Amino acid sequence: MKITFVSLFPHLIEFYFKDSILAKALHKGIFSLDFQNPRSFSKDKYKKVDDYKIGGGAGLLMQIAPLFECLEQIRQKEKNPHFIFLSPSAKSFHQKDAKRLSQKSNLIFVCGRYEGIDERIVEEFANELFSVGDFILTGGELPALCLCDAILRNVNGVLGNSQSLEEESFENQLLEAPSFAKPLIFEKNLKKFYANSVFLKGNHAKIAALKNTLASCKTKFFRPDLFLEHERKI
Amino acid sequence: MKITFVSLFPHLIEFYFKDSILAKALHKGIFSLDFQNPRSFSKDKYKKVDDYKIGGGAGLLMQIAPLFECLEQIRQKEKNPHFIFLSPSAKSFHQKDAKRLSQKSNLIFVCGRYEGIDERIVEEFANELFSVGDFILTGGELPALCLCDAILRNVNGVLGNSQSLEEESFENQLLEAPSFAKPLIFEKNLKKFYANSVFLKGNHAKIAALKNTLASCKTKFFRPDLFLEHERKI
Repeated sequence: MKITFVSLFPHLIEFYFKDSILAKALHKGIFSLDFQNPRSFSKDKYKKVDDYKIGGGAGLLMQIAPLFECLEQIRQKEKNPHFIFLSPSAKSFHQKDAKRLSQKSNLIFVCGRYEGIDERIVEEFANELFSVGDFILTGGELPALCLCDAILRNVNGVLGNSQSLEEESFENQLLEAPSFAKPLIFEKNLKKFYANSVFLKGNHAKIAALKNTLASCKTKFFRPDLFLEHERKI
Repeated sequence: MKITFVSLFPHLIEFYFKDSILAKALHKGIFSLDFQNPRSFSKDKYKKVDDYKIGGGAGLLMQIAPLFECLEQIRQKEKNPHFIFLSPSAKSFHQKDAKRLSQKSNLIFVCGRYEGIDERIVEEFANELFSVGDFILTGGELPALCLCDAILRNVNGVLGNSQSLEEESFENQLLEAPSFAKPLIFEKNLKKFYANSVFLKGNHAKIAALKNTLASCKTKFFRPDLFLEHERKI
């Protein structure tokens, strides 16, 4: 898989691939990375990349020409590029998108800055638009990294233990049950912290039933929307 | 404001404050940064920080003792620490949380790794738990950065133009209308890309009405859930 980030601030992205699991996967050649900066396509002598909005309104947008040229060059050079734009005004990214996109060979993440990207560019290039939530960020770099991380986890060879992909949240519209690590009783400042002892007794049917109950409670409390979906399906 | 990240991989976080708007705000002293690594609190001779789950199941959890010690020390040292845990099994982070949390003086972001954090630690320390979406990441570092960025934008002095905070998505349960930058007609490869000419005619009532229609269409299409909320309120 090849991953390209289109960003005015590539330094905010590169670092993330220099440690931990993704650094290992990159080193093993499971995916490759490229960065394209629209600033290099600016014909302005000060390398300007922002401009006023048509119709007024506060803030600046990314200038249309440098970003268009940058994406046009990628479209001509790359094989089957799949352009993903990040915007708070888009559908929510979901685990099933992460699985689906892990099958693509060439992902291009387009990160907006300032007040966003001219709609004409979105219409011309975007294969998909995604949001990571109902909040505003200074740029698309962090959401692009979130998507990239979630997608790469599903690419063969990135995680050591492929079984851990199977038991996770969202596979059945339920949040994951609370987890407890050893020891069963943790002591600190004369206080004892207990994990549920059912977990230690080895009765797998009972453990599974308890986990399911805890997962249901948690989902009902934190995410009533998800719980409704779950109930509709069973 | 003081911001502390608790993470096994501080290098994945630090970089983000070395460029762009947040680097400037940090330099101006609008906020300060601290990093605490639970690994320094491990008493294991190999500095082990993961352990098996009680009750079986794939993957490892963060070990309870080093993380507990690390958070305990922060709780004793810091004034009014507000502990925020990142987990896909939590409520969704929203723009109104970003505004609210921008008033706090001391935020501690606790980033999980492996299969997550022992529930006993969450119960003992967490003031709030947040998720950035229904997908799984290799760790809590990126969601913590997302929250931190969204919160800091709302702190006085971080953004140049405070007006741009006002017109944004989610303030009225609608996504933002599409935006167009100058020029009105962009030409490329003999093709012309037009922005809507209403924007140029200077009739502010007409511009506002058009923006509102476009915002409604976009919200209805991408986020029917948000559109329902919007209709309930008007």
